[in-house]
Amino acid sequence: MTKKIQVILYGLGPIGAACARVLAMRPDYEFVGAVDLDPAKVGQDVGDVIGLSEKVGVKVSDKTARVLAKDAQLVVHATGSYFLQVKPQLEQIIKQGKNIVSTCEELSNPWAQHPRAADELNALAKKHRVTVVGTGINPGYAMDTLPVAMTAVCQQVKRVRVKRVVDASKRRMQLQKKIGAGMTAEAFREAAARQEIRHVGLSESVALVARGMGWTLDQIQETIEPVIATKRVVTDYFTVEPNFVTGVRQWGRGLYEGEDKIILELEMAVDAEEAFDEVWIEGTPDLHSLIKGIHGDISTAAVVANTARRVVQAKPGLLTMMDLPVVSAR
Amino acid sequence: MTKKIQVILYGLGPIGAACARVLAMRPDYEFVGAVDLDPAKVGQDVGDVIGLSEKVGVKVSDKTARVLAKDAQLVVHATGSYFLQVKPQLEQIIKQGKNIVSTCEELSNPWAQHPRAADELNALAKKHRVTVVGTGINPGYAMDTLPVAMTAVCQQVKRVRVKRVVDASKRRMQLQKKIGAGMTAEAFREAAARQEIRHVGLSESVALVARGMGWTLDQIQETIEPVIATKRVVTDYFTVEPNFVTGVRQWGRGLYEGEDKIILELEMAVDAEEAFDEVWIEGTPDLHSLIKGIHGDISTAAVVANTARRVVQAKPGLLTMMDLPVVSAR
Repeated sequence: MTKKIQVILYGLGPIGAACARVLAMRPDYEFVGAVDLDPAKVGQDVGDVIGLSEKVGVKVSDKTARVLAKDAQLVVHATGSYFLQVKPQLEQIIKQGKNIVSTCEELSNPWAQHPRAADELNALAKKHRVTVVGTGINPGYAMDTLPVAMTAVCQQVKRVRVKRVVDASKRRMQLQKKIGAGMTAEAFREAAARQEIRHVGLSESVALVARGMGWTLDQIQETIEPVIATKRVVTDYFTVEPNFVTGVRQWGRGLYEGEDKIILELEMAVDAEEAFDEVWIEGTPDLHSLIKGIHGDISTAAVVANTARRVVQAKPGLLTMMDLPVVSAR
Repeated sequence: MTKKIQVILYGLGPIGAACARVLAMRPDYEFVGAVDLDPAKVGQDVGDVIGLSEKVGVKVSDKTARVLAKDAQLVVHATGSYFLQVKPQLEQIIKQGKNIVSTCEELSNPWAQHPRAADELNALAKKHRVTVVGTGINPGYAMDTLPVAMTAVCQQVKRVRVKRVVDASKRRMQLQKKIGAGMTAEAFREAAARQEIRHVGLSESVALVARGMGWTLDQIQETIEPVIATKRVVTDYFTVEPNFVTGVRQWGRGLYEGEDKIILELEMAVDAEEAFDEVWIEGTPDLHSLIKGIHGDISTAAVVANTARRVVQAKPGLLTMMDLPVVSAR
């Protein structure tokens, strides 16, 4: 009998709960603790909180230190998107000797925006001999790991271009709100200027692609603009009239000697007609790939759960998806 | 200045030479020796033999032991498709303490057909602290590593199905001959029954997918049939009249409890109208992927050259592509 991987859940919002549900289906994992500060969740059984049909026998606690002191090989961390905000949490986990897989978008490649803090966390992880990886569908897979993996079949690569279109009409209300659905274009631009509306992680994806390709970029640029409704759009949560905002279109660019080496385009809108992931590799040979079916919420939970095994096996340190062997659904 | 990876070339036929040409373009590799038994190549400069515009300053030798005694981190091995035939060569290289990346098709997953011999080679590689990996576009990437990597975005996977169509009209004469172009259907079936006509590696790809997915298969089946010309087909080497053979269609199936869990279909024909790589993942979510542009010869050389770096870095043993971090063109 193989020993199960003992897991502590840290953060049971929608994404953390979704990751936990995937791990709950797998016989090789068991939950030994759960942290969340939400009073509505504290004291409840993990099974009830994450929406299983059975109780797990582990209660959610807000006593972080006490939970982290338990024996476990892995913490599934899902509390926020910004590296500097979650860094103290990660440090506390690392000091308890636990490996971490996290949904924190910026942690997918924290060197992109916070190289010194990333080096610090890397040193701390090595000192305590644990592995830390931030991942998810995007950043973490669809716009970085998968396109880089495709270049394996190329002798040379001049440019990597990715376009991802997300149909936000079927996503959570929180996500529809985050992309500005229903706003005026003016309000959108103001909110975007305050960085209240944006997908977090495009710079990290650009930097991950550069890391995977061994390219040293001169600059990473991000731009953002609203997607405007041409007809009335109705979702479960919003009604968007024509000329109002249905979502966001963002570009991330990696520049080297004045040239776009990496171009990532992300559209998330409630009126996207079709969702897809498209990759163009300019090189020897040129490649074109079109993938249909990747779903933001389902797939983020999948990538995190699928990466868990690799994180437990990997060498110590703050790693990226570029450092791990093939991640698969198992 | 980073120290270059010193490489010995072992086997300078068309594929070995193509791999060498890719490594020759990269500043981080240098050739320190080359083995080939062909009298036409022995004594010639590697640059002349592999078709570079410049000499390399290293001569091809048939004194295998002498060449393998040189300092080098890696041997690029390209002498044959069958594991048991090349195993003595691999053992000799391993005993000289060199890592190996090989184009040997069966070596991509030698446990598929020769588990005991594979275990032996694995033990020898570990003893001498070197890494051995067999790879190429197929087996090694298009029908195994890449489909498995796509499942990272799935919570559950029920079935992996891959279809690869190769336009053989633009490939080497040797390959066109190997797939039976120009034969009668009867002669094809006889030659196929003697295993003289077939793509080597489909069973290995099925087993690689199973390995990546953590599936223990009950059985792996291979079937083969001719592709028949419906009109006259002319290539640089063959003219195929209607009703004669233009190529091969092969299936590899991985069965578990009577169900096809893995279905790989490979068509290589001189009248293939379009070349593509298509993947269907049945699971949560379902995925469909279509890639255009992967080229057999160019991409095999690419995969081998791109894997070289990962082989030098990896832990000792006989590994598969499932064990290596993301391979990319760099």
